[in-house]
Amino acid sequence: MKIFVIGIGLIGGSMVLDLKQTVLNTQIFGIDANEAHLDEALQLGIIDQKATLTDLHQADFVIVAVPVDAALKLLPEILEKIGDETLVFDVGSTKLPICELLENHPKRRHFMATHPIAGTEFSGPKAAITGLFRGKTNIICEVEKTTFKLQEKALDLFQKLGMRIRYMNAKSHDKHIAYVSHLSHISSFMLGKTVIDKEKDEQDIFDMAGSGFESTVRLAKSSPAMWTPIFSQNKKQVVKCLSEYINNLSHFKELLESDDYEAIFNEMKNTNRIKEILSMKG
Amino acid sequence: MKIFVIGIGLIGGSMVLDLKQTVLNTQIFGIDANEAHLDEALQLGIIDQKATLTDLHQADFVIVAVPVDAALKLLPEILEKIGDETLVFDVGSTKLPICELLENHPKRRHFMATHPIAGTEFSGPKAAITGLFRGKTNIICEVEKTTFKLQEKALDLFQKLGMRIRYMNAKSHDKHIAYVSHLSHISSFMLGKTVIDKEKDEQDIFDMAGSGFESTVRLAKSSPAMWTPIFSQNKKQVVKCLSEYINNLSHFKELLESDDYEAIFNEMKNTNRIKEILSMKG
Repeated sequence: MKIFVIGIGLIGGSMVLDLKQTVLNTQIFGIDANEAHLDEALQLGIIDQKATLTDLHQADFVIVAVPVDAALKLLPEILEKIGDETLVFDVGSTKLPICELLENHPKRRHFMATHPIAGTEFSGPKAAITGLFRGKTNIICEVEKTTFKLQEKALDLFQKLGMRIRYMNAKSHDKHIAYVSHLSHISSFMLGKTVIDKEKDEQDIFDMAGSGFESTVRLAKSSPAMWTPIFSQNKKQVVKCLSEYINNLSHFKELLESDDYEAIFNEMKNTNRIKEILSMKG
Repeated sequence: MKIFVIGIGLIGGSMVLDLKQTVLNTQIFGIDANEAHLDEALQLGIIDQKATLTDLHQADFVIVAVPVDAALKLLPEILEKIGDETLVFDVGSTKLPICELLENHPKRRHFMATHPIAGTEFSGPKAAITGLFRGKTNIICEVEKTTFKLQEKALDLFQKLGMRIRYMNAKSHDKHIAYVSHLSHISSFMLGKTVIDKEKDEQDIFDMAGSGFESTVRLAKSSPAMWTPIFSQNKKQVVKCLSEYINNLSHFKELLESDDYEAIFNEMKNTNRIKEILSMKG
């Protein structure tokens, strides 16, 4: 089976690392705009050989794991170059723009819009790890637009990665993911910025940082090249949940300024519910 | 050696668990306002026996690990009841109020104001774990106000826990810790609240939450009983850093609304520096 991965970073790289182990007779072909990453992926054994878009007619699967702006540019061309049996899927964190773009593409039925909810704060081929997708959720949007035979083929692949599947329309995906993923990233980036700005005057401040700070600020290590186009493509939803977040923080500040500690206690007590919510999940 | 622990939760409990292993001939005495916690600590083997404040004259060490409002109420009385060789230290996340309160106490030289930067989001005796303090920082404020002999005794104890020591004045401690600890908790609590409020309409939203969200929202599981008095005691500093945080978020939102993606990229790129800062630490 010939699997092409376009963009060999954390997600694309981790995916083929596992597929090499679980799919019989697999050949992994790598395509990347960054030649150094391509060499690195070859050296690390993530891909078996380098390829170009003109080789795509041989592919059984094409995994498109590039930043979401690059995906919009590349996907129409990719679809034009694939063979009759090829399934192409993307793994981006926004789904509406790609679904809208490809809606009337002649090869739309060869495409599946997916979002595997998995990752770390690292990027590039070195960030690729095995087992990243095991037990994680893969969201598939507009599944009915993919031809049935290719749906089956894709589901088999995702099962081999150990993923559970959720179906959703693209608009709902983008709305919900703004809350549980995109907002966390902004919250974390701005927390990092606030403390770094302070640190300019106070050299020793980070010596006082414990595991709580490290956990909350972890996502601020994420790649700006990956996240800028996500925020751009999901602007409306991100602005909306960011406004709600700012309102909640401002309200908390007002409670503090007016010494309303009973209300502050209750705000936190009610939010403790996140403990049960997250433990029920998955 | 007789070690008394007042408040047998995550911090107090974890501390004596390790001290039982590393200090020879140790007897651990527990005091807690919550009788059920006291029984639990006894059953779990965290303490050897229950005690009351009237037993404190026997103590070599008294660890005060109660919420910071309770510490202010208890400490004057504790100091009055200790013996001539006893060292008392607190472990609270605010240091200025306790240092101011005890400044002119006749037994001030028997007291050490400390803040071990360690913890998890859990609380109560069941949350106590071994090795919690190994490699972590313990901040000691106004060390010169503790008698020299008792300083030595305390440092030996902290060394046995595997902690490194930083000295700081109480005001600086409270100012800096607002940024690297107190703000993270508010950021996380309000993120949890924003998403929970949304979830009221959208049942399935948490199925989409990945490890990034879980990491950023982890501190929202923390105890309101512990955190409300911390925010109260450090109100001025917390309001200040919370305002800066809200300003940074609002600025990010404005950049997004005006489609200034170059500036958004740069905000994130500059904050990526947190990666190097945190890896240099410790």
